[in-house]
Amino acid sequence: MAKKGSKKAEKEPRLSELLRVPDGGKRVDLGSYDARATPGGPKDKKAALAEIEQMGEHLAELQERLWAASTAGDRRRVLLVLQGMDTSGKGGTVKHVIGLLNPSGCRIKAFKAPTREELKHPFLWRIRQALPAPGEIGIFDRSLPHSRLRSSGGTPIEDVLIARVRGLAPRSELTRRYARINRFETSLAQNDVTVIKCFLHLSYDEQRARLLERPDKHWKFNPGDIDERELWPAYQEAYELALRRCATPRAPWYLIPADRKWYRNWAVSRLLLEHLEALDPRYPKADFDVEACRKRLLKGA
Amino acid sequence: MAKKGSKKAEKEPRLSELLRVPDGGKRVDLGSYDARATPGGPKDKKAALAEIEQMGEHLAELQERLWAASTAGDRRRVLLVLQGMDTSGKGGTVKHVIGLLNPSGCRIKAFKAPTREELKHPFLWRIRQALPAPGEIGIFDRSLPHSRLRSSGGTPIEDVLIARVRGLAPRSELTRRYARINRFETSLAQNDVTVIKCFLHLSYDEQRARLLERPDKHWKFNPGDIDERELWPAYQEAYELALRRCATPRAPWYLIPADRKWYRNWAVSRLLLEHLEALDPRYPKADFDVEACRKRLLKGA
Repeated sequence: MAKKGSKKAEKEPRLSELLRVPDGGKRVDLGSYDARATPGGPKDKKAALAEIEQMGEHLAELQERLWAASTAGDRRRVLLVLQGMDTSGKGGTVKHVIGLLNPSGCRIKAFKAPTREELKHPFLWRIRQALPAPGEIGIFDRSLPHSRLRSSGGTPIEDVLIARVRGLAPRSELTRRYARINRFETSLAQNDVTVIKCFLHLSYDEQRARLLERPDKHWKFNPGDIDERELWPAYQEAYELALRRCATPRAPWYLIPADRKWYRNWAVSRLLLEHLEALDPRYPKADFDVEACRKRLLKGA
Repeated sequence: MAKKGSKKAEKEPRLSELLRVPDGGKRVDLGSYDARATPGGPKDKKAALAEIEQMGEHLAELQERLWAASTAGDRRRVLLVLQGMDTSGKGGTVKHVIGLLNPSGCRIKAFKAPTREELKHPFLWRIRQALPAPGEIGIFDRSLPHSRLRSSGGTPIEDVLIARVRGLAPRSELTRRYARINRFETSLAQNDVTVIKCFLHLSYDEQRARLLERPDKHWKFNPGDIDERELWPAYQEAYELALRRCATPRAPWYLIPADRKWYRNWAVSRLLLEHLEALDPRYPKADFDVEACRKRLLKGA
């Protein structure tokens, strides 16, 4: 990830390398990442939109191949996890990036307060129910604003985060929960789930600007969202810890500067594309006599 | 619905009226409906694609309003049910019509063999689990070809259909099951679910043409799909009965000529649009002081 002031790399590196948060428990300082930066990105919004459209076709083809391969027993699938402060653009990313794909092959879970059915089961049950099936692209996101989130209303990461910011659990308990999330995510990776965790990094000022737009969209806004801004430093610290504790080799975090929506959409599309290209799913070969089938149909069947 | 040879109506009627299958138990004769017809539709493919794009913007706005209204307690939602013979284009309809919408607000259920979890519960449990929540647009479709369908692998209608074609249950039992489906669908309509059931009407010859394309897409095809064509008359008769028995005032059937993909996509988009326009969902009013919030934010919060 290009830190403030760092030189642009000589050759275009893979975006995944550029945005990947170092693992191994290194301290993460969000303040050192410019939320308006566009590392590895196109020069402006116009170029970004053109590239996103191009990537859309490629993404749709790779998605079809992933799905096709699953019909022949390939168990691979992708799970895109979106995290970030209120207004960082999780919903917009789903609309503009996942909107490029065939909706039939996507499985979107926007976490909110657990349903009656979900409450009957242990904590990870609702996560498992929401996982993508082989061939699918799953998306996890938190749909409630922080102000309305309780300790079991978000993604697993957000639940720990809220517990930390609100002091709902002792720190030792939170450390254990991060370890549990890591074990779970590693087990997913071992079970053919490619996990792509994106932290949409928004600045304090950009959040203000977006909240100022929102009072016109009352249904997306509540005054508690402003109160919650007083907890900004606590949230940043909690995200830094989540990025530090849960960046693992099999389920890395990607830190995406999110002040510019066009860069955010471009970067998430690009990350998805790079991961699908690496999977390189193939159309299965026919296990039947194609020519004989053609002849039967042409004879009038 | 414009039957073969019938005159085009003088004035553009609402498509819902044009395509609606009469209820009241009237006999349905699929042979009298031309699968290549384009009742009420644009003059050609080019015009259809342009109209679909235009409708897309309008659909997306209505979807946002439906979602916004749900955040203030509006319980209304839409359920689009797609039925039809193999290759009639259920998947293509989801891709091209639902692809116009914000994926976050869509809930797609492609029915296949029940999961272990689903088998633990009574028959309707898996249907209820898949229903759209308030504010959402749900889509039910059958994802397996008829040849791979057992008596509990499709939508409720398809399950009865398969049981009839394969003689898996006595006719009196099937009549009871249709009645049960009708009660269920009526109860949905009474609970703020707008049910739009689309039968994609495909001709025998067009299915051949589409199957002939498929051996290149092996993963979408199996030779059993050709054997199944021998049962074509039995399937047509079973669909006629399903259309007759399950066309109810609160959950009508729409018969969509589906030999032309552009007409099929146009017609389903249009039906969805007409129903959303009739619901006319509204953005909720703010229950807080918008100006005070603006001031707080501008003062630096």
